[in-house]
Amino acid sequence: MSSNHGIPSRSENYGEWYNQLVLKADLADHSAVRGCMVIKPHGYALWELMQRALDDLFKETGHVNAYFPLFIPKSFFEKEAEHVEGFAKECAVVTHHRLKPNPNGPGLIPDPEAKLTEELIVRPTSETIIWNTYKDWIQSYRDLPLLINQWANVVRWELRTKLFLRTAEFLWQEGHTAHATHEEAEQEALTILHECYGRFVEEWMAVPVIKGVKSENEKFAGADHTYTMEAMTQDLRAIQAGTSHHLGQAFAKAFDVKFVNKENQLDYVYATSWGVSTRLVGTLIMAHSDDKGLVCPPKLAPIQVVIVPMGRDEETRERTFGASDTLAAELKKLGLRVKVDKREKESPGFKYNYWELRGVPVRVEVGPRDLDSGTVIVARRDTGEKTTLPLGDVTAHVAGLMDEIQKSLFQRALEMREANTKRVDTWEEFESTFAGEGGAGFVLAHWDGTTETEKAISEQTKATIRCIPLTALDPSDDQPGVCVKSGKPSARRVLFAKSY
Amino acid sequence: MSSNHGIPSRSENYGEWYNQLVLKADLADHSAVRGCMVIKPHGYALWELMQRALDDLFKETGHVNAYFPLFIPKSFFEKEAEHVEGFAKECAVVTHHRLKPNPNGPGLIPDPEAKLTEELIVRPTSETIIWNTYKDWIQSYRDLPLLINQWANVVRWELRTKLFLRTAEFLWQEGHTAHATHEEAEQEALTILHECYGRFVEEWMAVPVIKGVKSENEKFAGADHTYTMEAMTQDLRAIQAGTSHHLGQAFAKAFDVKFVNKENQLDYVYATSWGVSTRLVGTLIMAHSDDKGLVCPPKLAPIQVVIVPMGRDEETRERTFGASDTLAAELKKLGLRVKVDKREKESPGFKYNYWELRGVPVRVEVGPRDLDSGTVIVARRDTGEKTTLPLGDVTAHVAGLMDEIQKSLFQRALEMREANTKRVDTWEEFESTFAGEGGAGFVLAHWDGTTETEKAISEQTKATIRCIPLTALDPSDDQPGVCVKSGKPSARRVLFAKSY
Repeated sequence: MSSNHGIPSRSENYGEWYNQLVLKADLADHSAVRGCMVIKPHGYALWELMQRALDDLFKETGHVNAYFPLFIPKSFFEKEAEHVEGFAKECAVVTHHRLKPNPNGPGLIPDPEAKLTEELIVRPTSETIIWNTYKDWIQSYRDLPLLINQWANVVRWELRTKLFLRTAEFLWQEGHTAHATHEEAEQEALTILHECYGRFVEEWMAVPVIKGVKSENEKFAGADHTYTMEAMTQDLRAIQAGTSHHLGQAFAKAFDVKFVNKENQLDYVYATSWGVSTRLVGTLIMAHSDDKGLVCPPKLAPIQVVIVPMGRDEETRERTFGASDTLAAELKKLGLRVKVDKREKESPGFKYNYWELRGVPVRVEVGPRDLDSGTVIVARRDTGEKTTLPLGDVTAHVAGLMDEIQKSLFQRALEMREANTKRVDTWEEFESTFAGEGGAGFVLAHWDGTTETEKAISEQTKATIRCIPLTALDPSDDQPGVCVKSGKPSARRVLFAKSY
Repeated sequence: MSSNHGIPSRSENYGEWYNQLVLKADLADHSAVRGCMVIKPHGYALWELMQRALDDLFKETGHVNAYFPLFIPKSFFEKEAEHVEGFAKECAVVTHHRLKPNPNGPGLIPDPEAKLTEELIVRPTSETIIWNTYKDWIQSYRDLPLLINQWANVVRWELRTKLFLRTAEFLWQEGHTAHATHEEAEQEALTILHECYGRFVEEWMAVPVIKGVKSENEKFAGADHTYTMEAMTQDLRAIQAGTSHHLGQAFAKAFDVKFVNKENQLDYVYATSWGVSTRLVGTLIMAHSDDKGLVCPPKLAPIQVVIVPMGRDEETRERTFGASDTLAAELKKLGLRVKVDKREKESPGFKYNYWELRGVPVRVEVGPRDLDSGTVIVARRDTGEKTTLPLGDVTAHVAGLMDEIQKSLFQRALEMREANTKRVDTWEEFESTFAGEGGAGFVLAHWDGTTETEKAISEQTKATIRCIPLTALDPSDDQPGVCVKSGKPSARRVLFAKSY
């Protein structure tokens, strides 16, 4: 399919469609630093809206923000065995604190006299440095719970990167909470999953998710168990949209964080951690966008309405610009984010493509002939639908469209997911479902609960267990059965897919 | 002076007063990583309010946010000679991207097979990586101006650190703008100084500043010239509250960023950069606080009003808690940030000290006997003044206090500065003024304009040129005279002080 928007179509090449969309919609750019991206103003504005909404949800549920060091002493890293196993292979290591002129040639070298006695790791996640700090903050049950979140950058040295989805440095938030009991920590991990992440992804991003528990094999390095939300991309893969970990007492034990409980006994503190990242921007793009470019749910669109006034001569432009400014002022009064595109050298067609590519949910075309009859044209980005409306009705109509588009995007994504979710009971069907190169939707199948079988399945099909759903999509999913691979007993169906 | 607040008095030991205040008011904590701090929730809430106000000012003046990589390739760093000279001596150097088990003992070591071919520097500031990126974004004058800001963490390997004021890692914003002409860049640097930084520090932080130009010796490494704002601390030192640099074409030349101008000729792009950091939290503490702890201007106070209900028994508490909640709800309706302290095990006196230490501008005491007569007591943090007021008048009175305290703190700081600023015309007086250990206020004196004299003065007195004021504090300051040190001609007085 040819396009005036300068990106390949999804059917042509989904991977390149995504890459080009991110670049051409001014969301992000590659940088000179291997694996690190530049988040461009339009992409960052989207991330800022995400941050604001998430931050409000965290605060509503009693959390506060703080900030912990970028660097983690190597020895901290070594204290929690599973954790170090998970992160040591892909971390940035700081070894010196000064450069000096190269005595044997041009340029600078790390100064051997400024070698650190202990290497510092650029945080891939902050459990270790935070639990080392909590040790000083927690003595008694009266110091608990600690409900702290941090907005930060982290570094994981990924070898194969993709803008937003997998980058060596990314931006995220990481919550780290401390509790007196296992039950309280469990409640916290679930509150984050349901009240913060779940609400955000479904209500703001308009992306339906399946919530569940990760298998032992897929859980966070150091966690007791991990909750996850899994979304579906348009190429029918799974994408993890956020995780919330019940860490048990592992980090408290590694960092010796004990407290006096209500029974006046010493006990280790219970912990959770949870995070979502700029990866959500990639998830949003994958969920809704089309061959014309970004489709952005109105709640997160940096520009919600673009007004394009027309006119080839000064006199006409004076009229259309005036009408556009008036309309923009009315829409802004309703709290909408509005832009009037007054560029004179670009044609209307160029501007339509330009803002479609950048995902503006609603476009208003203000042309001289329409103005003569007291009307303008309102175009929806998601459906392409165009409506001619009397000027007096535009504000209310556009405001209503925000809600309508938000809901309609969610509905469309939900229908896509439902149309591409199936139950599979034989290994033959399972294998053939995942035989192609690309994504193959969600498969609910029985699994015997062992890591051995899980690994065998993923080696043969590239499909992995995305989660053990918390709530059955269909009541029958919770019925016992036999493992699709081993034939051994299984308590319930779990969710398989190829994933990003 | 003894105190119930657990910190030394300013007169006793100003340095320790500051250190203890920061720790005990829950603003920040030391971390296990040399020179890096933990910003605690109360301190971070203050920083978030600062960020929000600054971000709004940046956006009002046409700027947008973006994000650039944490790491800077060493070779970029080397491209601008003055710049590297300024930062190479105190930077964190990443040399490896993996740890591996130590073959000769316990623990982990940087994997020699994962040594980077080019070292990466953790950004001390981002001019180099950003100008390398702008090269791809700018071709023509139509791509200009670029008005971009970034909120980020940076690392400068400071040897002697002090919480907020000087830390190895700190949080800041850095603006990086690109312009077609020298005039436009100059205008931008001044807009930031006056409309953003100046307004923020004076109107939100309630700290008066003297704006001026840095001397050649004190300007930013790589800048054409640097604008600064200088505030005075209570121990009569200067503290730099923000800088805005006109970079000329230096970075465009270093990174070969040319554009086609309106006359269709190739030219190098003009640049500015500007930043303020978590240092401002330290500045705010130093400017207003007292022997009881933090004094926070209402506009930036995380909690603006604390309500302390009293009562030793359940029945009394029911009444005072109820009245407090009603009052809190009314104050919140006005947009105020309010906390009701319902802790039962702590005495009212403990609570007064607790919230005074943490800088809450207004306290409302709700006692049973006062309630009987329909009154409560309102106490101001800044003056200690207590007023008994009828319940019905409290909301309006407290709302009015916010403005009054904000203005009064500024006025008090301005008076302190004026009382401690003098004009000095002889070397004898200059030397004796700065002879003591501590700060000695601001001195306006003549200087011959040479780096040689500037260095001689600072070596002998520890006083440095803080700035060449943009506007004379007194018209006579702009009259010619003779240098206080060399006796050579001087065009105007400049500002000297010992500084943080």
